[in-house]
Amino acid sequence: MPRYTNLQTFMRVPASKDLGSADVAIIGFPFDTGATWRVGARFGPAAIRQATAGLRPYHPTWRLAPLEHLKVVDYGDVQVVPGYTSETVDRASAELKDALVPTCVPIFLGGDHTVSFPELRAVAHHHGPVALVHFDAHTDTWDQQWGQPIGHGTPFWNALQEGLIDPGASIQLGLRGSLSVDGDWERPQRLGFEVVTMAEVDPFDADALAGRIRRRVGDRPVFLSFDIDALDPAYAPATGTPEVGGFTTREVIAVLRRLAGLRFVGFDLVEVLPQLDAPAQITAVAAANIVYEFLGRLAAARTPTQIGP
Amino acid sequence: MPRYTNLQTFMRVPASKDLGSADVAIIGFPFDTGATWRVGARFGPAAIRQATAGLRPYHPTWRLAPLEHLKVVDYGDVQVVPGYTSETVDRASAELKDALVPTCVPIFLGGDHTVSFPELRAVAHHHGPVALVHFDAHTDTWDQQWGQPIGHGTPFWNALQEGLIDPGASIQLGLRGSLSVDGDWERPQRLGFEVVTMAEVDPFDADALAGRIRRRVGDRPVFLSFDIDALDPAYAPATGTPEVGGFTTREVIAVLRRLAGLRFVGFDLVEVLPQLDAPAQITAVAAANIVYEFLGRLAAARTPTQIGP
Amino acid sequence: MPRYTNLQTFMRVPASKDLGSADVAIIGFPFDTGATWRVGARFGPAAIRQATAGLRPYHPTWRLAPLEHLKVVDYGDVQVVPGYTSETVDRASAELKDALVPTCVPIFLGGDHTVSFPELRAVAHHHGPVALVHFDAHTDTWDQQWGQPIGHGTPFWNALQEGLIDPGASIQLGLRGSLSVDGDWERPQRLGFEVVTMAEVDPFDADALAGRIRRRVGDRPVFLSFDIDALDPAYAPATGTPEVGGFTTREVIAVLRRLAGLRFVGFDLVEVLPQLDAPAQITAVAAANIVYEFLGRLAAARTPTQIGP
Amino acid sequence: MPRYTNLQTFMRVPASKDLGSADVAIIGFPFDTGATWRVGARFGPAAIRQATAGLRPYHPTWRLAPLEHLKVVDYGDVQVVPGYTSETVDRASAELKDALVPTCVPIFLGGDHTVSFPELRAVAHHHGPVALVHFDAHTDTWDQQWGQPIGHGTPFWNALQEGLIDPGASIQLGLRGSLSVDGDWERPQRLGFEVVTMAEVDPFDADALAGRIRRRVGDRPVFLSFDIDALDPAYAPATGTPEVGGFTTREVIAVLRRLAGLRFVGFDLVEVLPQLDAPAQITAVAAANIVYEFLGRLAAARTPTQIGP
Amino acid sequence: MPRYTNLQTFMRVPASKDLGSADVAIIGFPFDTGATWRVGARFGPAAIRQATAGLRPYHPTWRLAPLEHLKVVDYGDVQVVPGYTSETVDRASAELKDALVPTCVPIFLGGDHTVSFPELRAVAHHHGPVALVHFDAHTDTWDQQWGQPIGHGTPFWNALQEGLIDPGASIQLGLRGSLSVDGDWERPQRLGFEVVTMAEVDPFDADALAGRIRRRVGDRPVFLSFDIDALDPAYAPATGTPEVGGFTTREVIAVLRRLAGLRFVGFDLVEVLPQLDAPAQITAVAAANIVYEFLGRLAAARTPTQIGP
Amino acid sequence: MPRYTNLQTFMRVPASKDLGSADVAIIGFPFDTGATWRVGARFGPAAIRQATAGLRPYHPTWRLAPLEHLKVVDYGDVQVVPGYTSETVDRASAELKDALVPTCVPIFLGGDHTVSFPELRAVAHHHGPVALVHFDAHTDTWDQQWGQPIGHGTPFWNALQEGLIDPGASIQLGLRGSLSVDGDWERPQRLGFEVVTMAEVDPFDADALAGRIRRRVGDRPVFLSFDIDALDPAYAPATGTPEVGGFTTREVIAVLRRLAGLRFVGFDLVEVLPQLDAPAQITAVAAANIVYEFLGRLAAARTPTQIGP
Repeated sequence: MPRYTNLQTFMRVPASKDLGSADVAIIGFPFDTGATWRVGARFGPAAIRQATAGLRPYHPTWRLAPLEHLKVVDYGDVQVVPGYTSETVDRASAELKDALVPTCVPIFLGGDHTVSFPELRAVAHHHGPVALVHFDAHTDTWDQQWGQPIGHGTPFWNALQEGLIDPGASIQLGLRGSLSVDGDWERPQRLGFEVVTMAEVDPFDADALAGRIRRRVGDRPVFLSFDIDALDPAYAPATGTPEVGGFTTREVIAVLRRLAGLRFVGFDLVEVLPQLDAPAQITAVAAANIVYEFLGRLAAARTPTQIGP
Repeated sequence: MPRYTNLQTFMRVPASKDLGSADVAIIGFPFDTGATWRVGARFGPAAIRQATAGLRPYHPTWRLAPLEHLKVVDYGDVQVVPGYTSETVDRASAELKDALVPTCVPIFLGGDHTVSFPELRAVAHHHGPVALVHFDAHTDTWDQQWGQPIGHGTPFWNALQEGLIDPGASIQLGLRGSLSVDGDWERPQRLGFEVVTMAEVDPFDADALAGRIRRRVGDRPVFLSFDIDALDPAYAPATGTPEVGGFTTREVIAVLRRLAGLRFVGFDLVEVLPQLDAPAQITAVAAANIVYEFLGRLAAARTPTQIGP
Repeated sequence: MPRYTNLQTFMRVPASKDLGSADVAIIGFPFDTGATWRVGARFGPAAIRQATAGLRPYHPTWRLAPLEHLKVVDYGDVQVVPGYTSETVDRASAELKDALVPTCVPIFLGGDHTVSFPELRAVAHHHGPVALVHFDAHTDTWDQQWGQPIGHGTPFWNALQEGLIDPGASIQLGLRGSLSVDGDWERPQRLGFEVVTMAEVDPFDADALAGRIRRRVGDRPVFLSFDIDALDPAYAPATGTPEVGGFTTREVIAVLRRLAGLRFVGFDLVEVLPQLDAPAQITAVAAANIVYEFLGRLAAARTPTQIGP
Repeated sequence: MPRYTNLQTFMRVPASKDLGSADVAIIGFPFDTGATWRVGARFGPAAIRQATAGLRPYHPTWRLAPLEHLKVVDYGDVQVVPGYTSETVDRASAELKDALVPTCVPIFLGGDHTVSFPELRAVAHHHGPVALVHFDAHTDTWDQQWGQPIGHGTPFWNALQEGLIDPGASIQLGLRGSLSVDGDWERPQRLGFEVVTMAEVDPFDADALAGRIRRRVGDRPVFLSFDIDALDPAYAPATGTPEVGGFTTREVIAVLRRLAGLRFVGFDLVEVLPQLDAPAQITAVAAANIVYEFLGRLAAARTPTQIGP
Repeated sequence: MPRYTNLQTFMRVPASKDLGSADVAIIGFPFDTGATWRVGARFGPAAIRQATAGLRPYHPTWRLAPLEHLKVVDYGDVQVVPGYTSETVDRASAELKDALVPTCVPIFLGGDHTVSFPELRAVAHHHGPVALVHFDAHTDTWDQQWGQPIGHGTPFWNALQEGLIDPGASIQLGLRGSLSVDGDWERPQRLGFEVVTMAEVDPFDADALAGRIRRRVGDRPVFLSFDIDALDPAYAPATGTPEVGGFTTREVIAVLRRLAGLRFVGFDLVEVLPQLDAPAQITAVAAANIVYEFLGRLAAARTPTQIGP
Repeated sequence: MPRYTNLQTFMRVPASKDLGSADVAIIGFPFDTGATWRVGARFGPAAIRQATAGLRPYHPTWRLAPLEHLKVVDYGDVQVVPGYTSETVDRASAELKDALVPTCVPIFLGGDHTVSFPELRAVAHHHGPVALVHFDAHTDTWDQQWGQPIGHGTPFWNALQEGLIDPGASIQLGLRGSLSVDGDWERPQRLGFEVVTMAEVDPFDADALAGRIRRRVGDRPVFLSFDIDALDPAYAPATGTPEVGGFTTREVIAVLRRLAGLRFVGFDLVEVLPQLDAPAQITAVAAANIVYEFLGRLAAARTPTQIGP
């Protein structure tokens, strides 16, 4: 059947709440109460699922069909309480801790970046503190926003407070744009993160960037958090806090394909705002393809022969 | 959970291919190869399902929650062959004849109006020739389009040729706009249909229109086909062949609520083109609400006390 | 061939600059320098021509195909000087006086309402002062805008100054919305026009409105100027100075169809801004259909038997 | 200067935080954390202010320029805490109680409907319990949403709990659409409100509706809360929970113009979502015009001679 | 006259069905029944013609005005049968064989990529098998889609079956994205094509890419087929099957300008979907400019002095 | 307060018509009568101001908060006469000469490029002839457009005629696209400008480009005019005359950050058309960020320690 037909799970994988036997779970997290400017990421999971109508089974870089090597299920969405952040965070943390098992790698579809905090609670519950590979225009390590403790600018501070991340093995890439205060970029560094600003990215060298990531995380369990605003607004216009001067999709994909050998225990893709993506929905298409790269990466790790870029 | 979350079946009813025990089946028919001007109705089923996030359980006119009185399932989509009309029509006719049972009322989500032909094949297979109640700006009774036998301008001619409709018990409402040839409006009348043009609708009288429908169809099995272009483009901009001067949603709903006592055996809602519905998607919202009226109508018919407008 | 294909003249009539033997000429006037708020009516002619892909040959009210009874040509566009109003007005007046002949009825596609002034110069050149039937939310009889003499708020004042209109035989319909100064509505009345505000339209009575028009213009040569903002923004969102509370298309068409017996010598349809009409372009569709009513009206006037609403 | 230029206060009135000598204050309330489906009403105040570029000074019904009879200032926006409802409600209540004085009538621009609760706190603080005239598709009298006490479905329940509304003098108009539970419409009636569903509105009679309102509120201080979804989605597509079958702008304006003699102490206009209003922004235009009717209503009440529809 | 005015042929060249004395013919092919995901390329020819309002006469790289060196006419559109692929292919093949002459280079404006098959039939009819230079994200050499023999994924397979292409002199550039099956990229290679995937393009070297093309095609007659999805979705969002990670316009133009000396006998530009291009229409603008490069290329080939990038 | 709230001055700086004590004045110039193709730049100033909701105080490259080092005020908009170019130019020139003082650096937000002419009159009035650094796809040095002397294609010719620019110290960057006549690119060179076409930009070298600019302007007073169409349409779709093959934002920002030591006396940012920027408004976001770079540049010039890219 044409891929745009039928009920839209991610890439038409089976829907299931039972993750016990799954290798990978696609989990929507339709929450956007943490957003500070534009809103609407609550519709991100549905839009990304729909955009997977553009994904075909076979990944030419890895020469395999990810879904043949991985048992992938679509969990549907985590339960949220729109407008209520701490309620959502606590409820979702609990739901995810229960639902996940160590052998199942979750791929979360946000939602604004707030969602990474409860996701990390669940992932660290099963794997201990993770190395964070964080693509984003922003550091998301504020300790408050508007005086409140949790929002899309604070998830990694929230996670650090609970010991969910190993900052010494973590790295942020793509930082750029204007800052709230002096120190916004020094802050993650003081917290222990390595940071790569866009000014360091030119001239672009995928091997060098991938090398920095690989050296940073080593053999620790890795959680890769991809804020779609790591991409330039030309490539991902539909996001909440766009920053000019970002990555192209070619660059991002080149880096992602060079991350062989990392021990991924979770991913998320956040901050897609479908209301701002009409009519061609290229942001959702980019998001779907980046998630597809995660799947390809996971599948390739399970095959004897490693082929790559 | 918020209604906009999770995998989007129609109103979050269970997904099922087994219609044996269902009272109502929502069936998507994502086909638009029959369109003569604007295209994109293939995305109609997904958009209407998404728009049901705006539907709540309880219908205040009938004072009941339709899903409590009816077992409704979402069948997903019929299999289609994009770009190939006769293949799709034949394949879908067969699939639907098999899938449907007489006790299950199908509600089809188009798709361009071509889809009514294979739908009627399946419905008439179980119920014999049906009385057609047809809301549309156009007659859709051409005997060809561009010299080809099947398309969105021909479904009821196609159906008549196979004896699927009882024209003497059928009625078309909402005709308007420019015509291809002299005789386009006389044609359905010669074929036996009653027709109601928009010129006859003013001043609007819901009771009179509902009365004409009720008298026409009597106690025969009824298939109600609703082309969204029966509505004015102000109310349903995202359609393939919009015609100004159409119904308002208030008028259409007023008529639909007055159709008590009809023996409905099937419905469809066709010609929603989501690519033309950005950003507010009011056409999909209108479509979802009209389908909700079908459900309300069916549920009310099963309850002892009839309450209404 | 499908009507949406090929080079887009209005309804696929022949393109010709020679109007000598034509009954009707479609003439684009792609000028919008006179606009006071939103701009973009310069793209109106192209958008309306494209929207005629939705028009079919046969008019069911008049039971005739207008193009079989009238020789209609598409003149293309009048020459304009973007950004320079008086140059455009003078150049276009001269071009139109030359191009038109008394036996050819022009139908102008604007452009902002400024264009009615040079149009009326050309029409009155051949027919003497005309009776104006003017559908609009605004009076367009200011004597200046921002201190300048010509713009889309002044065309009928400009025309009166040159004796192109017979105000005593003229009528304005659809006035509503906020005004610049006390007297904006009394002004056209003092100038001799009859005015019908929207407050007088409810409850709507097409016969009464048409009667007022017919009585007003009598047997004089009539120029009908239709500003698309006579329609409510729900029906015509893509316009420069939208005013809520306007006509529906059903109402407008009902009135237009009741104007039998008028001696039309020209029409225009102005203030369509295609940049604001995406994605479903319902304003251009409405405009195309209203022009089609003009054609139907003209064709019906030439046939022995008058059939109508 | 053209009205679309310069810093965009409402109708270019002066910006001022000092309401002591103002007759009317325009106050933005850019908060949308309470929304249950579509989000983005936080941008409503800015969009409505921009749309006032389409408003001219003089109101033809009342034959006066409201800004000449009323000292109107634009307060700017109330302080909000995005994502945190109770913090926002409490902070805004305090700010508004301080800022407002009894002689200044506030006109609030939402924001989602949550904002009516803190607004009513401030208004009732100065005037005592108010008669509520509430145009809306929904009752907004739930006692919780997703188990939380405050949101855009609860403001009038919240207000009733604190005695801010006199339900026996209050009325809701425009109710329609599907409901969460049996009793959603009976609930406001049990709480003491009069309700007018859309089913009661046809055939439309502005005098009758205005009469019901006038009789209901008598000479009590009146707060008029206008949810833009009282309008049909054709007229106001850009809203969070659109319901088909609503009022037209012509109808709403006709009713508002018939509310002479009411003692208005406050207004709000809520639920405009500009992200869904592109490109023609007709929802913001409708909102601006409805607020203009409020101003006209207030100004007319201060003039000796009452002229009207 | 301003280039955005008047009836829209490509760059305002004369419309003519007589190609006997033309050097170049612009030929629209408004067909999209072959599309597998998003639809609407039927409106591509009209949109690209409109976008040529942005093209001025003089090409600075070649220091000439192409239309002064080439007699270019706009043929209008080929006749199509919407919804019927084999009928369209056969009818168009016949029409094009008749209309074209060897001395006239056609530039086709699609339509979906299905159209390359009948185009190649006509071109090869006059020139024998051609060398194909194919810019695309996809190979378009499937032997069926959904079990049917012709569609936008099959044109070059269809052409190979009839010997219209010399695969040993042909090259595909820009391949990327997920594939239907293992072998989708090996397939064209097995058929004899040279393929250049996007992974090979970085770091970008226009001379090297142009060199590969030039070496591949030698002095054979060349047909250049440009699927707009060769560009990244950031540069060409409005296309049917967008794939992230594509060419920039700067890169594509740099390559095209380096193709001196090739013996071009035909071009096409396909897969522009204007319904997805609102509001800024950058895809149509890109398409128009790429076609302009074709014209510049052809004109430069006819002038004694070769100037270039 | 959230930055998207309250009355929208640029970055929420104070509104003031008194520039006497300001270091920098943001001045809107909402005029677009000079546009030759797409229109709507009159709404540019409002849209750019709104997009500054995305700008935070601190610039990480310069390690300072520009607004702490510079007294910046928002002047509002210059008075314009829509539709009347010479009136606007003369009135604005006079207003700006009066309003500006030598110690206040104006940053103008256009408007179409016509506005640079009156801006330069005012700036040169205080500083003498300026060195022009001009980012643009076009030279804007025509001596007429449509036979008229002033428009968005002529500002620098107009300025040269009045001796406002020192062409020998001026440079244009980003030229590309088709030209009106042979000589369009030689013309600025003959007038004395240095020109850098996009063909010279690859491979991109920010230091080299900045070096060319620095060498060109030396220590003269510099006016930097940035036409947003210097960016590629992928990065700035919402502009009047888009040209493919332009700069990326990363490139432009890299160059701007390397312009230390220039003596800037004025800036403008022109040709943003918000009507074409829906829904994600990335063009306005890019414009706001480029202006922010201007501010950062000015602030950094005032601090003892120069830090940079």
